[in-house]
Amino acid sequence: MDHAPQQNVPLFGRPIETAASTGAPAGLDTLILKQGVTHMITEIAQIDVKPGTEKDFEAAVAKARPLFLRAKGGKGFELHKSIEKPQRYRLMAKWETLENHTVDFRGSEDFTAWRGLVGQYFAAPPEVEHTETVLST
Amino acid sequence: MDHAPQQNVPLFGRPIETAASTGAPAGLDTLILKQGVTHMITEIAQIDVKPGTEKDFEAAVAKARPLFLRAKGGKGFELHKSIEKPQRYRLMAKWETLENHTVDFRGSEDFTAWRGLVGQYFAAPPEVEHTETVLST
Repeated sequence: MDHAPQQNVPLFGRPIETAASTGAPAGLDTLILKQGVTHMITEIAQIDVKPGTEKDFEAAVAKARPLFLRAKGGKGFELHKSIEKPQRYRLMAKWETLENHTVDFRGSEDFTAWRGLVGQYFAAPPEVEHTETVLST
Repeated sequence: MDHAPQQNVPLFGRPIETAASTGAPAGLDTLILKQGVTHMITEIAQIDVKPGTEKDFEAAVAKARPLFLRAKGGKGFELHKSIEKPQRYRLMAKWETLENHTVDFRGSEDFTAWRGLVGQYFAAPPEVEHTETVLST
């Protein structure tokens, strides 16, 4: 099966363009994404909520779902709950560009609405970071 | 379109079973996963690498890909690179159960092989956490 077609099924649901699919020699290292080929951004927001508000927080995030789905460049999100720290969540949102989150969304009325829905449950300001996917199975 | 079929397309590529699909009343809050319905685990390993080793580290993770793919309960992974902290990576791996990672994989020879490939690039021991997905668009 050395020459079977590569399965480019990204865990996050976005298209992965590998060196192999762009004509470069095949091999394991071709799974490293070529710089600049893809620009999709993952926002990782680590959110610690006040004890006892976990279910209310989860329901509030569900209510806020349309705000993210209609955001410019917004490509959906997942809410993860930590197993080791039950009051810790990670909101992982996909954006076409970094600025779609940091400028467009944060500058929008929907950001105010988002914070209005969930901010009351925050135990501390969320720690937000952005990533690019460099490798995917 | 109130009664259109829900799109259960998870960002991470695993099936999402919502309250709606199990017969519960429809609504935004039905997107919250019912506890116990799904058991897929995400391992989030935050890895800071030594300055200047970024590309070597990425290549080493690519070489280690088969170790994860053949691991018991292993469902693939993504390697993310932080935009704000260029020496920070997050390996996000999917497992059927927590123990598939913490017991089966960490107790396997392939874990030793994994650390043999990438450990030399670590600036510090990785910070590892596990999550469950509670909400997905």
